[in-house]
Amino acid sequence: MAIFCQSPFKPITALSLPKPHQPHKTQPCLVKCSKTHLVSTEPEPVFTSVRSFAPATVANLGPGFDFLGCAVDGLGDHVSARVDPSVHPGEVSISEISGDNAKKLSKNPLWNCAGIAAIEVMRRLGVRSVGLSLTLEKGLPLGSGLGSSAASAAAAAVAVNEIFGARLSTEELVLAGLKSEEKVSGYHADNVGPAIMGGFVLIRSYEPLELLSLKFPAEKELFFVLASPDFEAPTKKMRAALPAEIGMPHHVWNSSQAGALVAAVLQGDVEGLGRALSSDKIVEPRRAPLIPGMEAVKRAAIEAGAFGCTISGAGPTAVAVTDDEARGRAIGERMVGAFMVEGKLRAEAVVRRLDRVGARLVSSIPR
Amino acid sequence: MAIFCQSPFKPITALSLPKPHQPHKTQPCLVKCSKTHLVSTEPEPVFTSVRSFAPATVANLGPGFDFLGCAVDGLGDHVSARVDPSVHPGEVSISEISGDNAKKLSKNPLWNCAGIAAIEVMRRLGVRSVGLSLTLEKGLPLGSGLGSSAASAAAAAVAVNEIFGARLSTEELVLAGLKSEEKVSGYHADNVGPAIMGGFVLIRSYEPLELLSLKFPAEKELFFVLASPDFEAPTKKMRAALPAEIGMPHHVWNSSQAGALVAAVLQGDVEGLGRALSSDKIVEPRRAPLIPGMEAVKRAAIEAGAFGCTISGAGPTAVAVTDDEARGRAIGERMVGAFMVEGKLRAEAVVRRLDRVGARLVSSIPR
Repeated sequence: MAIFCQSPFKPITALSLPKPHQPHKTQPCLVKCSKTHLVSTEPEPVFTSVRSFAPATVANLGPGFDFLGCAVDGLGDHVSARVDPSVHPGEVSISEISGDNAKKLSKNPLWNCAGIAAIEVMRRLGVRSVGLSLTLEKGLPLGSGLGSSAASAAAAAVAVNEIFGARLSTEELVLAGLKSEEKVSGYHADNVGPAIMGGFVLIRSYEPLELLSLKFPAEKELFFVLASPDFEAPTKKMRAALPAEIGMPHHVWNSSQAGALVAAVLQGDVEGLGRALSSDKIVEPRRAPLIPGMEAVKRAAIEAGAFGCTISGAGPTAVAVTDDEARGRAIGERMVGAFMVEGKLRAEAVVRRLDRVGARLVSSIPR
Repeated sequence: MAIFCQSPFKPITALSLPKPHQPHKTQPCLVKCSKTHLVSTEPEPVFTSVRSFAPATVANLGPGFDFLGCAVDGLGDHVSARVDPSVHPGEVSISEISGDNAKKLSKNPLWNCAGIAAIEVMRRLGVRSVGLSLTLEKGLPLGSGLGSSAASAAAAAVAVNEIFGARLSTEELVLAGLKSEEKVSGYHADNVGPAIMGGFVLIRSYEPLELLSLKFPAEKELFFVLASPDFEAPTKKMRAALPAEIGMPHHVWNSSQAGALVAAVLQGDVEGLGRALSSDKIVEPRRAPLIPGMEAVKRAAIEAGAFGCTISGAGPTAVAVTDDEARGRAIGERMVGAFMVEGKLRAEAVVRRLDRVGARLVSSIPR
């Protein structure tokens, strides 16, 4: 299914509105958007307040560097949005940020991922008469490689959209999230795409934005083991470590593994998925040495029965995959042990399923 | 499904023989083979003679450069093999080659694609007491970018295997075909893989050989428009045109398109497949200028309604895709016209379906 945005040059009618965000949709879908779409009549709030959730995401997935990501359940950020007459109409205020790292985050909405995405959704909706205040509950650690900024942006985008009747389409929510990502970590949708859409998402292009939802079969089990060490991955170093040029054999190898990864996702082949995840010859070999113990963690995960292991996003979290939850816990223990022994780093591991839903409303108070 | 070859160090029993070649199998399957496998007891011929067919193949498929290929129906080579007491036991002779380009091909089996593959199959089967003579009917033009050498090798491999009771597995047949490809056009399986297995095949690795069969849904229509100009693609130049190094943005782009191509195949999305096919930013832009008219042919195909168009293999054939046979014919006419007008080349176009079967027996005479 392809969804196209309206051109800004055409008047928007109710009939031609893009398809609203459908958080419970799980069919494969292709999302396309070429232009900004502004709703021509100002929407009214349908709720007094809402609370939304957006999941953590694992970007890159080895050979899917910069174009593949997926959402993991049970970890993520919450955003509450409420109509607030004390906030200047058409604007957004952040009233509270909770969570372990709350103090590190700005309450200025222009410098906060949730704030930036919320403002962009307000702009796209054309809201000029209502002000909102937001509360951000950070469930994700910052800079962990689990899409923390994308989760805040996705949760805020969905919260604001829902409060005004969910008029924006999925791709517009992703574009709003991208506004935020652009400011904090670069214009890339491999976290915010899956944070909003759930499941596995392939970023096919940016101009126009095209996101391909890759459906992992509902009947198959897939567990992610996420081992996060107490270490701040040096973001600039992680970027600088990337090669500018890639030899043809490595390009062909990584492309074929990316193809195999996509096939494994669609076919529900967890073993094949793990092997593809583990097969990156371009990015992981440059980045892993910058995370103390990472190479040993990968070996430990595979020795413990993981089908594959790589760096989640730009790290420092290591992600392994398995089809068995109990084995996942054993793999996690081994990964934590390897971080300690080889990297001299404390780490924590959790075992999580794929989040197939993406950012969603969790509660609301009607007007 | 994963098929593993026996290690040559273990005695082979009837029970542990690898799965025989199943030309009619269409389920997705993963083929793995790490070692040469020799049958320990010499097989006897079960047929006096057989005739086999192997289809033309389109390798590369744009961003699938060097690791993706597919088979197309109704075009290909035939090989007849018969038990011949006048041929030295354990050896192969080529008695006849027919077809337009027959005179260009050597009858020395050591210098003929069919001969090389046949000899390798004999070796793998351990045939020492029976000699075979082969007849090769070339249906494919040479050097056209349609996997001519692979079709001969695949047809011969299957013919010889069938005459001795089809003991070899699919992956061994591919390895036998690779022996031939290695000698004539380089060690690459993106033609001989699909020529033997049918459908779309992703070459995941060579050491060990792993081929991933990507099933295009049976209920979906897919037509290839193949426009072959009267032009000999300069093979060395085509190879030399490839960049040695690829910038990271192009690597990410092509990898994501390869992923999208695999998804489109598995989901039966012909439009998505066409767009991915057309999206190569690495190889096609370097090679197309070496084939007179190619860029115009691509534009003409897309203007005529093709979902995408690229170079088939190393050319000079151009391949376009559509879901409608009649439109395919119209596209073919436009492509032929563009080759004439812009490339000053005569060309012929045919419209073909995907071959989902691969190399197979077409007739046999029992002993």
